[in-house]
Amino acid sequence: MFAASNLGGCRIKRMKRFNDMTVAQLLAALASPEPTPGGGTAAAIAGAMGTSLLVMVAGLAKSRNNTDDEKAALAKARAAIDPITARLTDLADQDAASFDAVMAAYRLPKASDEEKAARTKAIQSALRGATEVPLETLRTCAAALEPARTVADYGNRSADSDTGVAIGLLKAAAAGAAANVRMNLGGLKDEGFKAAAEAETARLLAAPALA
Amino acid sequence: MFAASNLGGCRIKRMKRFNDMTVAQLLAALASPEPTPGGGTAAAIAGAMGTSLLVMVAGLAKSRNNTDDEKAALAKARAAIDPITARLTDLADQDAASFDAVMAAYRLPKASDEEKAARTKAIQSALRGATEVPLETLRTCAAALEPARTVADYGNRSADSDTGVAIGLLKAAAAGAAANVRMNLGGLKDEGFKAAAEAETARLLAAPALA
Repeated sequence: MFAASNLGGCRIKRMKRFNDMTVAQLLAALASPEPTPGGGTAAAIAGAMGTSLLVMVAGLAKSRNNTDDEKAALAKARAAIDPITARLTDLADQDAASFDAVMAAYRLPKASDEEKAARTKAIQSALRGATEVPLETLRTCAAALEPARTVADYGNRSADSDTGVAIGLLKAAAAGAAANVRMNLGGLKDEGFKAAAEAETARLLAAPALA
Repeated sequence: MFAASNLGGCRIKRMKRFNDMTVAQLLAALASPEPTPGGGTAAAIAGAMGTSLLVMVAGLAKSRNNTDDEKAALAKARAAIDPITARLTDLADQDAASFDAVMAAYRLPKASDEEKAARTKAIQSALRGATEVPLETLRTCAAALEPARTVADYGNRSADSDTGVAIGLLKAAAAGAAANVRMNLGGLKDEGFKAAAEAETARLLAAPALA
């Protein structure tokens, strides 16, 4: 349980962590007209399905040609990928929380000049958070796609389609996270932050493992 | 609850429907070295996240230019997409069950010529099922991607990244399903069935909505 938005004490929305929801509850939450959870959460969970599949393939008893070198490389890739699943499910939660914070900031009072200034500051701060979370999702998917190549090269041939699905889901998650970064950057005024975030997004999307 | 594999009475494995698992349980099941659930299940659930997001965007109070025509088109698209989520979560279950049936067929006895013949027949029958399920997943994702274009064209601009994630997930699900069709076709001997399934797979993948 976490406080999805607790900005200025104006609203506290408690929600289950997505990890603890059933798949049916997650799908219903995505389909509901509430602003969260949205694409950022779905992307992170799709990425987590991808890393889970890679952990499975890298952990199979037999590798492609069943050599010790392949098995050592797969064990290393598996160790790198395994902790990423939990990072992605955390990011699924953080994505919803960060966007709830944006919504909460927009609901702040704007009667006086002081209130207007405080509200603008709160919106900018919340939008920055809502940019940083999908940017971290993008970084995390990119980090998983590097060792994923080892799994694609050395994993048991009978699981090739599992590896293919995993890589496809991680790429879709990365592209979705990048779309969310860019969407939220649009509302930000800090040109330095915007330029740096856009440059990092473009650089990550252009990495060989994501192409 | 369903019998995941009950071929020749040799093994009955009961499992929860994926809809009723928590996300954490689903991810753990995907990561486990058990042959199922695998990429076919992950692809179908990713597709279901995509259709859920599209239902959300198509159901928002405001459309892109907030015209009656747009809202009517979105309502029609939403009605077409909404039932697809449940079809995809059913296919997630069926995918695991069909592959469990393949595994069960391979475990049948093969001491006598009669047993060998029965086993070969059972394997072929199970592989055909394990091809038909991902082919249906591919058809279903393709069917969702048609009305998804209406959502992309007329959905509220503030949800463009949600629509983008949805379409990305449905395309990844379709590609993953196609990879599973082709993987399982490899083991089939019925050339007529193989040619027809491959032709339909190629045709669906080449559809404009999937390109």
